[in-house]
Amino acid sequence: MIEKLTKDEMERALRDIGARHYHNHHPFHRMLHAGACSQPQVQAWALNRYYYQSSIPKKDAILMARLPNADDRRIWRQRLVDHDGEQPGDGGIARWLRLATGVGLEAAYVESTEGILPATRFAVDAYVNFVRERSLLEAVASSLTELFSPDIIAERVAGMLAHYDFVSRETLAYFNARLHQAPRDADFALNYVIEHASTRAEQDLVLKALRFKCDVLWAQLDALYAAYVAPGHIPHGAFLEQAPAESVAR
Amino acid sequence: MIEKLTKDEMERALRDIGARHYHNHHPFHRMLHAGACSQPQVQAWALNRYYYQSSIPKKDAILMARLPNADDRRIWRQRLVDHDGEQPGDGGIARWLRLATGVGLEAAYVESTEGILPATRFAVDAYVNFVRERSLLEAVASSLTELFSPDIIAERVAGMLAHYDFVSRETLAYFNARLHQAPRDADFALNYVIEHASTRAEQDLVLKALRFKCDVLWAQLDALYAAYVAPGHIPHGAFLEQAPAESVAR
Repeated sequence: MIEKLTKDEMERALRDIGARHYHNHHPFHRMLHAGACSQPQVQAWALNRYYYQSSIPKKDAILMARLPNADDRRIWRQRLVDHDGEQPGDGGIARWLRLATGVGLEAAYVESTEGILPATRFAVDAYVNFVRERSLLEAVASSLTELFSPDIIAERVAGMLAHYDFVSRETLAYFNARLHQAPRDADFALNYVIEHASTRAEQDLVLKALRFKCDVLWAQLDALYAAYVAPGHIPHGAFLEQAPAESVAR
Repeated sequence: MIEKLTKDEMERALRDIGARHYHNHHPFHRMLHAGACSQPQVQAWALNRYYYQSSIPKKDAILMARLPNADDRRIWRQRLVDHDGEQPGDGGIARWLRLATGVGLEAAYVESTEGILPATRFAVDAYVNFVRERSLLEAVASSLTELFSPDIIAERVAGMLAHYDFVSRETLAYFNARLHQAPRDADFALNYVIEHASTRAEQDLVLKALRFKCDVLWAQLDALYAAYVAPGHIPHGAFLEQAPAESVAR
């Protein structure tokens, strides 16, 4: 029988997954941060990622509905507040929308999610369904990519401000809030999974859940890269430079 | 108010979606059929598509559970028989496994689905969830890609036999059965959606469901193309030439 990992070993194993599989290593992010993206490529990123951002509160509501006690639900509820805001125009989704319009997209087009890549939808929906269908422990564990986000945010904000004249500090306001929200959320989730994984088998499920979530993030960038960087096979109906695509022969 | 389409207009609209969005137009398929794929690329295709094949009976069982009358369930049940067979080693999944081993993969590795691309899993699971969550009409409509499969099968079998010395007629036996199964299944589903879509709004949902399913098939090839044809960013853990991947640094 394989022994249960200690608290420290478990945290190390989780951080090791981040070090190897987090999407900061993806070539699309390296391009984005180094200033190698065209404005339409940055737009495609902002547009597709809006679908991810706007699905997060659904995921959090599903998770909160599964938490059996008020203390945990109250803590998790803060994520809903952060993303949906206290009033219209407030919160993470609204800030991401301002990022998308800041790089030149129309708000209504972004909110419609009409122009996103099917693969974006499939990956994001896979995440929401994972949180609905797997054990509560795995559902919480799948949020742990936030352990790794402060580094990528710092790199992204600096890189994008330095390299793109169509990007301003206001455009990137979304990330300011995340810099303190993400570590707070990640701390709670990290303690939760370390406390609640009571066997090695459960610890392995936690590790696998974090791998799965890294795949969800990675696959979104793969789709962007395949459609907008590599010899573009942009799926019919997906975002095309400027024109909110109508009917383009494949 | 927009008028309801006639039976003929509806069938034409469905076939038009196939003509524009079916995955026979995807560059990966053009390569595959023209002999431009390496053996590992053919293996990656067979391996990833195994996950699709083996998920189809789950999808059909979900759909059958939603059909309210015995006559329709009995007809739909034939799909389960076709895919799962009458005994071990029989049926479409077993035949696809023989296709995969025929092109040089190990059966246990294929069946484990360990080496498939995350994007394959996300797309296929999106299909299964669509059939679970959408209306029964849309669920049936999403099967209608079978209207278009006989053509692609004929082209594929001829192309692969002509171009790959590692492919034999026995390896491709899966497709023989599909040549008569698919049209029979598609006829039933086509009549079903034409009969049950009683408003223009419902007809539009049918058309959208078929578009969605085309996206599911297309996205699987996008993932293959991005990982194995375009400057390869093969996700960690996914199939690598020969070696059932263990730990490869990203």
